[in-house]
Amino acid sequence: MAKVRVHNYTITLDGFGAGVNQRADAPFGDNVDGLHDWMFAAQEDKAAGGGGIDAERVGRWEEGIGATIMGRNMFGPVRGPWEDESWSGWWGDNPPYHHDVFVHTHYPRAPIPLEGGTTFHLTDEPVETVLDRAMKAANGQDVIIAGGAATIQQYLRAGLIDELYLVQVPLLAGAGERLFDNVADALLNYQVTEMVSSPTATHLTLRRR
Amino acid sequence: MAKVRVHNYTITLDGFGAGVNQRADAPFGDNVDGLHDWMFAAQEDKAAGGGGIDAERVGRWEEGIGATIMGRNMFGPVRGPWEDESWSGWWGDNPPYHHDVFVHTHYPRAPIPLEGGTTFHLTDEPVETVLDRAMKAANGQDVIIAGGAATIQQYLRAGLIDELYLVQVPLLAGAGERLFDNVADALLNYQVTEMVSSPTATHLTLRRR
Repeated sequence: MAKVRVHNYTITLDGFGAGVNQRADAPFGDNVDGLHDWMFAAQEDKAAGGGGIDAERVGRWEEGIGATIMGRNMFGPVRGPWEDESWSGWWGDNPPYHHDVFVHTHYPRAPIPLEGGTTFHLTDEPVETVLDRAMKAANGQDVIIAGGAATIQQYLRAGLIDELYLVQVPLLAGAGERLFDNVADALLNYQVTEMVSSPTATHLTLRRR
Repeated sequence: MAKVRVHNYTITLDGFGAGVNQRADAPFGDNVDGLHDWMFAAQEDKAAGGGGIDAERVGRWEEGIGATIMGRNMFGPVRGPWEDESWSGWWGDNPPYHHDVFVHTHYPRAPIPLEGGTTFHLTDEPVETVLDRAMKAANGQDVIIAGGAATIQQYLRAGLIDELYLVQVPLLAGAGERLFDNVADALLNYQVTEMVSSPTATHLTLRRR
């Protein structure tokens, strides 16, 4: 049965998935330097055949993903109406998704097909509709809610997420987008089913009760 | 050099040190059942000679504490003016402190000396004054800011804490008193100098940069 999942979403000790002042030259904002260092190190370790906890975990559950949903701030630094339509994401001509990616925005655009099978769909439809489209596009595979925090919160509030795989790193951001804000009682529907740590990251699996 | 420390303060994955509705029969409030299970298990394990990470950690830095500071909600469930002065803390006739304990409250009372060397001082003085009194009482030993979250936040905002030893457990409270709220930029003065996990708890040391 296809799942709706959050995958490898990384937060600081104080719970932030991004700092303040997200912008073109600092996509995750201020005071979160090193937020994803665990991931890059793990990918290197894995490529080199290493067997650390992070390396073993980073690629888990990467198979079987058929569509991705994200917020507009994860798609790019442009805010408000599109001045032109040249921006096609942070990831260049051949993004690493290789499937349909749905982007929540108040300013829809025509689909943006890129190399390697990634097509960005910029839509202002409600989460239920977008998830429905994503599930169809995924064709039996899982759908990932990629972020940022505000987008994950929307899906949590709507009760639409089956599983969250979070990684917490020992950094303090102080301010920014906190994953666990604005979710009312939604978190009480989940429990942490697994926690395992390397020296640099704590891996947590949250599943519906 | 004597330090001002937070010691074994336990928070949920979403950052809460207590849930909502703290009351006499639920001192830590709702949706935090099991918050301190790691500690009880660790103390048992330690008493039995066990060598788990939690057992090894739970008693660390317990030596050399000369005074404790806490908020009134940690002292008891009574809110507002004291109806009578019979309440002398949650801990019975012989509290586990065995030194002077300073309790921030808007409703001061005469000192409450109990067995075993614990005396509760209920004061409405500002944090700087109370810390000064506690440092004198500690006579060269460390002072612990015990909690709750609001009290630790006050001392963090005032820049008065040298070191925080936090324990994070894989629970989701959803609401309550969140340690990392209301501290403005204070956390940016700290870094996580150590993180180590057992299967049930992540131990984190925060020190001033």
